[in-house]
Amino acid sequence: MEARGAPADVLLQLPWLPVSIGGCQLLAKSWFGETAYHLLLTDVNCVWEERMDSVAIQRRAQELNRRLRAKVEAFFSHLREVAQPCLTGSGGQADGGEAQVSLTRQEDGNIGIKLKSELVGLPFYWEFHCTPAPVTVVCAQLVRPLLAMSHLLQQQVEQQGGLLGRKDAEIQDYRENGAVLSRERLQTDVFEEKTYREDFMSKALPLIPSGRTDAPAFDADLQRLYAAIVAHGNARKRKLSPGRRAAEEEEGEPDVPSSLGGSDIDTGAGEGRPEDAAGAKMADRPAEQQSLPAPRPAERPSSKPKKKKVGLFR
Amino acid sequence: MEARGAPADVLLQLPWLPVSIGGCQLLAKSWFGETAYHLLLTDVNCVWEERMDSVAIQRRAQELNRRLRAKVEAFFSHLREVAQPCLTGSGGQADGGEAQVSLTRQEDGNIGIKLKSELVGLPFYWEFHCTPAPVTVVCAQLVRPLLAMSHLLQQQVEQQGGLLGRKDAEIQDYRENGAVLSRERLQTDVFEEKTYREDFMSKALPLIPSGRTDAPAFDADLQRLYAAIVAHGNARKRKLSPGRRAAEEEEGEPDVPSSLGGSDIDTGAGEGRPEDAAGAKMADRPAEQQSLPAPRPAERPSSKPKKKKVGLFR
Repeated sequence: MEARGAPADVLLQLPWLPVSIGGCQLLAKSWFGETAYHLLLTDVNCVWEERMDSVAIQRRAQELNRRLRAKVEAFFSHLREVAQPCLTGSGGQADGGEAQVSLTRQEDGNIGIKLKSELVGLPFYWEFHCTPAPVTVVCAQLVRPLLAMSHLLQQQVEQQGGLLGRKDAEIQDYRENGAVLSRERLQTDVFEEKTYREDFMSKALPLIPSGRTDAPAFDADLQRLYAAIVAHGNARKRKLSPGRRAAEEEEGEPDVPSSLGGSDIDTGAGEGRPEDAAGAKMADRPAEQQSLPAPRPAERPSSKPKKKKVGLFR
Repeated sequence: MEARGAPADVLLQLPWLPVSIGGCQLLAKSWFGETAYHLLLTDVNCVWEERMDSVAIQRRAQELNRRLRAKVEAFFSHLREVAQPCLTGSGGQADGGEAQVSLTRQEDGNIGIKLKSELVGLPFYWEFHCTPAPVTVVCAQLVRPLLAMSHLLQQQVEQQGGLLGRKDAEIQDYRENGAVLSRERLQTDVFEEKTYREDFMSKALPLIPSGRTDAPAFDADLQRLYAAIVAHGNARKRKLSPGRRAAEEEEGEPDVPSSLGGSDIDTGAGEGRPEDAAGAKMADRPAEQQSLPAPRPAERPSSKPKKKKVGLFR
């Protein structure tokens, strides 16, 4: 299950966190397993995702860090420590020092996030290649919860309107029986729903974030409501179909590991950094041949002079 | 502009209407121009669209109705009259009698809607081929408005909570000064926001439509709020960038007519109906050669016996 990315329920139940990545304001959900991750990012004009399993992570790490000889288990914890603060908006310091992060919006609609950090004294590079998410994912993670939230809030508005009317009836009864306020300033206007709503809208509409020009916002109250709704939805889902796996039910996606395709690996790998073709080729070596802290396998002699072994790197 | 589909602002400002198409409960937006249309459909698990311009409509009409000799202007009004009741949930009778409508969910994630109606005494077939909408369209038409709606409603809930607190303070003042209700039943409980919200959620959560198993719902109050938000968003957009065309600003899509590709035309054309290959080939004839009510062009002799000309058909 983990190799395909987060169990879908896990990602669904995470909040959309406001993050600033390379100066870009986004909402993010991220899940890091033992040697796999699944990211969702949105600026509410588009939604992007990347799912990577152990094999794909190993290959990309080799491409981006040609001297890296470690198994994925060895460097993934470093990657997680470096990436998580950036993807949760917590802004904490990474283990190996602060990571340099940049975000690129590509012409094909994808976004790339480059990380540069330090691992046992050498630079460690990572890139997230995020592509527009399937519409079914956008529906599951945003449209359905937001529609349910709107329903609930609308009901709450109506119910509170009813309560205000009952308070007014109580107040009217006191006053008709001669009661007078001891403090004038406590007097309230009669709640008239239509007038109130029109007045509210005229003042509130100009202030809402459009999501086109402002940072997308998902404040604490909406986060709480989102959490309640997705938790409830999952509880009901399990009740409705106990025989099905959670991952099959969620998002309606085909059962294909999206991170295993070559395009995930090849796009822009090594771009902008002084690494030669030999580095990229090493990524094709099967994972079994790579070990930590084993020396370089004897069957693949190098044309370059040997460098001092430093921990995870050769 | 029309050949590319609806001006984007027009479709954005339409409400999501609940429709039942071939027994399937969906929300729909549709725009029909002079000889073009743009559909959006969702079951809140996915969102589909089809944009068709004059040329693509003409070609598909020929494929599906091989004896049809009319220009697109001549039969499009019939198509509109037949399709609109089905796509707006108005359920009205089409001009040429009630249309037979069926919806097919395809394994590739697309949906097809087949219409069969009667035009000047002969059957008239149409098919909508809807594919998953780009994520940018889903964001523009659903995610951004729903997030803004949630924000506004959350603010209204908070503001009304404040009003309820002020009513309670007024009531408390009357009572502390000895006022007594003439009718006991008018007495209200003190509004305590946290307790109220918890109680509300415990009762309302089990009743919200999940969108997975229930028909998607967008009731009148939410429709009104949606309309206010998209109208406001467009007003602000025009203010922010007066020099850009509305269609360019909306949805962030590339300037490519999506309906001109061959795939729109070829998929499943003529399927399930007794029409021969000659019928399909005629769809390749340029639109200029087709006329209403002109007889069949002399340069394309038929191997079949001539039939009586009936209006739009040969």
